[in-house]
Amino acid sequence: MPEPRPVTEIRTVACIGAGVIGAGWAAYFLARGLRVRAWDPAPDAGEKLRRVVDAAWPALTELGLAEGADRDALSVHPTAAEAVAGADFVQESAPEDLELKRALLAELADAAVAAGPDVVVASSTSGFPMTDMATTAAEPGRLVVGHPFNPPYLIPLVEVVGGEKTEAWAASRAADFYRHIGKSVIEMERELPGFIANRLQEAIWREALHMVAAGEATPEEIDRSITDGPGLRWPVHGPCLTFHLAGGQGGMAHMLDHFGPSLKAPWTRLEAPELTPQLRDDMVAGAEVSAGGRPMAELVAERDRAVIAVRRAVAAARGTAR
Amino acid sequence: MPEPRPVTEIRTVACIGAGVIGAGWAAYFLARGLRVRAWDPAPDAGEKLRRVVDAAWPALTELGLAEGADRDALSVHPTAAEAVAGADFVQESAPEDLELKRALLAELADAAVAAGPDVVVASSTSGFPMTDMATTAAEPGRLVVGHPFNPPYLIPLVEVVGGEKTEAWAASRAADFYRHIGKSVIEMERELPGFIANRLQEAIWREALHMVAAGEATPEEIDRSITDGPGLRWPVHGPCLTFHLAGGQGGMAHMLDHFGPSLKAPWTRLEAPELTPQLRDDMVAGAEVSAGGRPMAELVAERDRAVIAVRRAVAAARGTAR
Repeated sequence: MPEPRPVTEIRTVACIGAGVIGAGWAAYFLARGLRVRAWDPAPDAGEKLRRVVDAAWPALTELGLAEGADRDALSVHPTAAEAVAGADFVQESAPEDLELKRALLAELADAAVAAGPDVVVASSTSGFPMTDMATTAAEPGRLVVGHPFNPPYLIPLVEVVGGEKTEAWAASRAADFYRHIGKSVIEMERELPGFIANRLQEAIWREALHMVAAGEATPEEIDRSITDGPGLRWPVHGPCLTFHLAGGQGGMAHMLDHFGPSLKAPWTRLEAPELTPQLRDDMVAGAEVSAGGRPMAELVAERDRAVIAVRRAVAAARGTAR
Repeated sequence: MPEPRPVTEIRTVACIGAGVIGAGWAAYFLARGLRVRAWDPAPDAGEKLRRVVDAAWPALTELGLAEGADRDALSVHPTAAEAVAGADFVQESAPEDLELKRALLAELADAAVAAGPDVVVASSTSGFPMTDMATTAAEPGRLVVGHPFNPPYLIPLVEVVGGEKTEAWAASRAADFYRHIGKSVIEMERELPGFIANRLQEAIWREALHMVAAGEATPEEIDRSITDGPGLRWPVHGPCLTFHLAGGQGGMAHMLDHFGPSLKAPWTRLEAPELTPQLRDDMVAGAEVSAGGRPMAELVAERDRAVIAVRRAVAAARGTAR
């Protein structure tokens, strides 16, 4: 193929599927000053889409709209192919049904070829590897996963990963485009069902379901155990850096030596891997990278400032004092 | 036993163990205007303790000190028994070693009996059930788990649960005391290794260790996948309410019907429970309780306000723009 155009020339995005995720993506693209061409099989899709965009717009306005952002730069089309015609990038957010995704992505890839030589089709799938979704596509080279988090107009993370037949330029182009529009992109080198964040989130969710099923905790207790507990730390420091701080001056190394034995304890239904010297060293080195070379006292001060600010922010948003 | 004194009359707390958790508790108790009597076997325990208290004090001051709060209302004692003598409540935060906890808690329970008829000994254990820790105690009736989160001076959650031999008044007294000093308390009706929040956190942690061990993700990718992804939602809405919102207007019921099949998918190493009609209904009812009867649009608006505020709060604390 010829050299793709710079991602700054992506001006129009086709949003295929207008549920919570698809409509949330549409709102985000509009706020970044892009045009959106949407399709969804629901008869009232246009109405629902506009409702989500309208609901998201105050938040997007507060975060700062791109120059020329116009929530009316949105058109709804009678077929997916028509929505893709004239688009520079395609975001697919259909229901999480493998057969449906296979057929739809095959159709979208063909339409993308017709739309232009560098038009990529990114799937919002929550967890299907592209290799499994692209089996019936005639043009699998431009199919890539671009997995957002709900709501896509507020949560920065997008996980990008191709399938076996995805061409390297297509995955790079999707990642570059998302970065260009302000997303925090993780480009995965290999396919993994559920990608990264959803594997972590799904582990929590399954343990929660087990606890409710066994009568060990109620959904409200589960929710409060997170919102008033570790959930206050996670926007600041992820799980690895959190445990680095839990180790005190000794950091991750001390934490693993101290809490390592608890990996054998039945603290969740999930069996832990063997804490080999290699894994221990990888975690210690990884925590150092996450810490960015900052000394423990600085990390603790950062966490404390952030947790206080997060508690206040959440209390204000809830209209409650804490 | 005679009626316990009101928890407002708890004026002095013994902090046994002065590591990250014990020293963090000491800082919190001091900030609530209580006196702290500490013991730790380390020769430099007093120094380390004061360093943690000093580091925590700006955060505690910003959150608001209780009347009479004095960071110097802290004494360090040569033995655990001496620290407990004259205390109205005992918080044990020794290393996570079952044999060590057994011996120490037996000693602390005896000392608590000597200190007064309503002096409770609460253990900060991260996950041992009290039934397993109280096996050698002559006075197990006043031993209870009071599990905080790091740092105990900023994270509100405390999980309270007794063992088989814990007397009901002791568990209630610990819960009442923690609530009185501003904690968010979950009183568990039954013992469960790891309690609630740590089971959820441990599920994430083990999945993260598996991913690193298998070369599927790096610790930095894992951290960023949380801080820039679902971690931004969790201080606002816990896992159940988050998925209630992911279901759009149909809420948890739609979410379970839509994503239920993904429970069979290998999105984590943790096997899911069978999604029986009973479990489905319990999750739907629980989400309604967590939602507090608020309509979906109001929950979405709350989440959006909170996520924006959280993003800004974290960016400001980090000294970065996002």
